[in-house]
Amino acid sequence: MGRVTERRKVIRIRDGAVSSRPDTLVAEEPLEIRLNGKPLAITMRTPGDDFALAAGFLVSEGVLGGADELRNIVYCAGATADGSNTYNVVDVSTAPGVVIPDITLERNVYTTSSCGLCGKASLDAVRTTARWAVDDTRGGETSPLRLEPELLASLPDRLRAAQRVFDRTGGLHAAALFSEDGELLDVREDVGRHNAVDKLVGRALQNGALPLSRTVLLVSGRASFELAQKAVMAGIPVLAAVSAPSSLAVDLAAETGLTLVGFLRGASMNVYAGEHRIALRAAAAQG
Amino acid sequence: MGRVTERRKVIRIRDGAVSSRPDTLVAEEPLEIRLNGKPLAITMRTPGDDFALAAGFLVSEGVLGGADELRNIVYCAGATADGSNTYNVVDVSTAPGVVIPDITLERNVYTTSSCGLCGKASLDAVRTTARWAVDDTRGGETSPLRLEPELLASLPDRLRAAQRVFDRTGGLHAAALFSEDGELLDVREDVGRHNAVDKLVGRALQNGALPLSRTVLLVSGRASFELAQKAVMAGIPVLAAVSAPSSLAVDLAAETGLTLVGFLRGASMNVYAGEHRIALRAAAAQG
Repeated sequence: MGRVTERRKVIRIRDGAVSSRPDTLVAEEPLEIRLNGKPLAITMRTPGDDFALAAGFLVSEGVLGGADELRNIVYCAGATADGSNTYNVVDVSTAPGVVIPDITLERNVYTTSSCGLCGKASLDAVRTTARWAVDDTRGGETSPLRLEPELLASLPDRLRAAQRVFDRTGGLHAAALFSEDGELLDVREDVGRHNAVDKLVGRALQNGALPLSRTVLLVSGRASFELAQKAVMAGIPVLAAVSAPSSLAVDLAAETGLTLVGFLRGASMNVYAGEHRIALRAAAAQG
Repeated sequence: MGRVTERRKVIRIRDGAVSSRPDTLVAEEPLEIRLNGKPLAITMRTPGDDFALAAGFLVSEGVLGGADELRNIVYCAGATADGSNTYNVVDVSTAPGVVIPDITLERNVYTTSSCGLCGKASLDAVRTTARWAVDDTRGGETSPLRLEPELLASLPDRLRAAQRVFDRTGGLHAAALFSEDGELLDVREDVGRHNAVDKLVGRALQNGALPLSRTVLLVSGRASFELAQKAVMAGIPVLAAVSAPSSLAVDLAAETGLTLVGFLRGASMNVYAGEHRIALRAAAAQG
């Protein structure tokens, strides 16, 4: 895990005073993800949790839905000139019988709709590739999921407390998974927000925890379409973001039943979709 | 430009008080970029400046280096079921005689090195595809570019003042181009930081302003490898970021001669590479 950060010399200017010292930076390296030997995607990521990242990416793409569909994940021999492994190429092998959907590097999950390329096509693609509906009645639990605003409001502080690398580099996005009781289940950090979520989801797949019903996914920044898509594909019912969502993220949430919370700061938040999972009446009574 | 933002209903919770009202969100839609009729990439972007985005993307990929290499850019008929154009597919035609490098959707610009996939290969790819060295002696000006820290410190406020959409949505990344005298030359906003930079660079290409020597590129967030790459490919000598850089961004800057400034906040900043363009002695004298 030493590659999560790297040291570089930096010249600091503070109110006119100049000094030079070593600084800790978040590491960034390319990762090539192969599926059954075929190159599928390259992402710039922070090294570490690479197998989880690859597995989670394939959940997001609709390839994997459970640990039983995974045969193994290995680092390929991506050797440098001196023959040492770069550990930047991983190959995911699927179990016998797993049908690979027609995905390519073009990410044509977005373009398979009969209509011209548009946001609607992106929404349709998620709906047709999702393994699970966003649903609260799995895992033996059948009561509707209903979260107190106070519980949601407490999550960003818990995420921040669990972020180890951010404190040293200031350069990492984080994604955290919480139980419906607010217990921190997992937290992952990466130079790319989408990678942090893929690492969380991939870990869950490896642990046999998919779909992630009755959990809350908290991301440190904004809620884009891509992040909402990843939540839906993993069966996560609540996506909360510290900052703003995009229009298409809200549309996807509304269409799939995902609860989308944005601007989660202090005791304030905005609920953009799926408000039936937020105990609004209780909140109003306190107002 | 009406599609830059969209309105959605939002439920606001403020210290227990619940209210419902329309909210302005940053728009996000897919854009497919075609090169001479062939699909090349899909990016999730904020609609607007689409031609500039496509042109700038192709500068970053080493396809385009000047306005004379561009024949035209058009919206393709990406029609919805009712026959209306989605305006989400653009086709870039190159001028006769322009040689298209071997780029594909795999973005194999990162994988052409003989060594295994690694950060070094990413650096090599930029060096071999860059049209210009990062250089201060073009445009009739031959004196070395040397910026006062005070000038750099003033740029984030100028960027913020010029951000129109962010104030309404809180959901946009921004990229701004400044002259060596601190004059704001252009500012672009997008849900994706890389798109904001591509839009800036594409505009410059359309205006015949490449390479962008003797300018400063300021980005609202972090400085990743990808953003440093885009600066180098456009011939921009100084990249300044409000937040942290990654290790690979610093390595690329050091190797190409790009000046990389991070954590540009108030009168403080960190200089990670290319410090010969920062007037450090003057700053020290004030300390």
